[in-house]
Amino acid sequence: MSDGRRRIRVIGIGAGHPDQVTVEAVEALRSVDYFITADKGDDDPLLAAREALLARHLDVVPPVVAVRDPERDRAPRDYDRAVVDWHDARASAYEEVLLEREGDAGFLVWGDPAFYDSTIRIVQKVLARGTVDAGWDVVPGISSLQMLAARHRIVLHEIGQPIVVTTGRRLREAIDSGADNVLVMLNAGLDELGSVLASRGEDWLIWWGANLGTPDESLVAGRVADVLPTIQGARDDARSSAGWVMDVYLLRLA
Amino acid sequence: MSDGRRRIRVIGIGAGHPDQVTVEAVEALRSVDYFITADKGDDDPLLAAREALLARHLDVVPPVVAVRDPERDRAPRDYDRAVVDWHDARASAYEEVLLEREGDAGFLVWGDPAFYDSTIRIVQKVLARGTVDAGWDVVPGISSLQMLAARHRIVLHEIGQPIVVTTGRRLREAIDSGADNVLVMLNAGLDELGSVLASRGEDWLIWWGANLGTPDESLVAGRVADVLPTIQGARDDARSSAGWVMDVYLLRLA
Ligand SMILES: C[S@@+](CC[C@H](N)C(=O)[O-])C[C@H]1O[C@@H](n2cnc3c(N)ncnc32)[C@H](O)[C@@H]1O
Ligand SMILES: C[S@@+](CC[C@H](N)C(=O)[O-])C[C@H]1O[C@@H](n2cnc3c(N)ncnc32)[C@H](O)[C@@H]1O
Repeated sequence: MSDGRRRIRVIGIGAGHPDQVTVEAVEALRSVDYFITADKGDDDPLLAAREALLARHLDVVPPVVAVRDPERDRAPRDYDRAVVDWHDARASAYEEVLLEREGDAGFLVWGDPAFYDSTIRIVQKVLARGTVDAGWDVVPGISSLQMLAARHRIVLHEIGQPIVVTTGRRLREAIDSGADNVLVMLNAGLDELGSVLASRGEDWLIWWGANLGTPDESLVAGRVADVLPTIQGARDDARSSAGWVMDVYLLRLA
Repeated sequence: MSDGRRRIRVIGIGAGHPDQVTVEAVEALRSVDYFITADKGDDDPLLAAREALLARHLDVVPPVVAVRDPERDRAPRDYDRAVVDWHDARASAYEEVLLEREGDAGFLVWGDPAFYDSTIRIVQKVLARGTVDAGWDVVPGISSLQMLAARHRIVLHEIGQPIVVTTGRRLREAIDSGADNVLVMLNAGLDELGSVLASRGEDWLIWWGANLGTPDESLVAGRVADVLPTIQGARDDARSSAGWVMDVYLLRLA
């Protein structure tokens, strides 16, 4: 990366708290000429958090080029195909910015780029087109799943045991295949959780967190059967006080 | 935590690179009166990395109390029982230090405390005894599994798919239960990997990394069948140049 070539840097910025960014990431933020971010509209909840982070760690904030996020089919017939199409559209949008603007570009990634984020794949796509010549690197960040563990002061697994990390959409699949320690991200609501566990007649524990690292952070832990209504209430409260809610949870068979 | 009570802080310090520590962790390092670490003997490979980290981020390094690690049965008949006994012995050793020395204490945890680390469980054990009165918190750190992803510039799963995080000891179990995307830590060698995959006649991809974040960092990626000898060689090289080797890898069915 120090070969004098133009650089593209994919930078993990943590999941909500401006000090949960590494020293290496702060240096990376300071090293680029401009940032590219997905613009999800003026009401993007993460916009304010990103701005606070940049203001806190940079004396001079370089331009942030917000690229209008392509429309995405939220209920596609073919989910994987829809994601790929959407990645292609994003790649074209980013390519355009990179061709128009010289200098080193930084992509700001929520949490860690290694978990449920498309930036790495899209940068790869852009570079594969061969129109932009640049070296690139990835700077890890604290993921929301780590924030969940830290705030509940837990290890994410029993001693020496596995963890399955998955999405709300695939929770049933994980439980059906016998997983007894499951971390769930991209959770569209709690109905699915209730219905997946309802018929099993087992005792499950949950550690749940919403809007972690922000002033509206909310935590609940207990037996699922006892705390699900509390979580539902806390989720609604987080949404109404922050204007948005993102939550993550660990489920463990008791 | 700001109630004036004594504090115990469990601080994730990243997996080898002194700048892969968060701004929050640096503040936590600066806030305590002394550190407690497990002393695994003078040849503890992580000793030097820890010292470099403290020297880099603290103007004045507070005392580091190295607690002699209790002897551990490496080939116990009952693995879980042996771990619990060893946690108890460690808890007693830490309790002793906390009773002798006043002030806020910081535990330095390699990587992130949420993955395959006993510090959280041991602190809980100490506090459950009721002899030490203190508030405690956990500061997340970048885990070696995130370093693996960042250095290979990959996402740890296919789009929207799960990841199983497990140990070398339980790799076979994960593969046998149908997992096709497995991240392996605590890897005692590569023989197990070879033998688990040998009989399956499938094509697996691997992204492997050793001593990540250190000057002896080593990375290999490819089809397992092609690169396993290369990995074996790189693992031996890392060990002979650094004096120790720690490795982590992602396996994915092609
Ligand atoms: C598109 S994924 C991105 C994950 C991100 N790369 C990470 O490492 O945290 C978004 C999901 O992450 C989780 N998430 C992100 N930020 C969060 C926060 N501050 N509190 C709780 N969950 C969060 C939620 O499950 C959310 O649906
Ligand atoms: C006892 S576990 C601790 C894991 C740590 N809490 C973390 O989050 O990375 C030790 C294992 O972590 C992995 N590991 C830790 N540091 C590493 C490094 N610098 N490079 C590669 N693997 C590492 C190896 O799999 C090693 O066997």
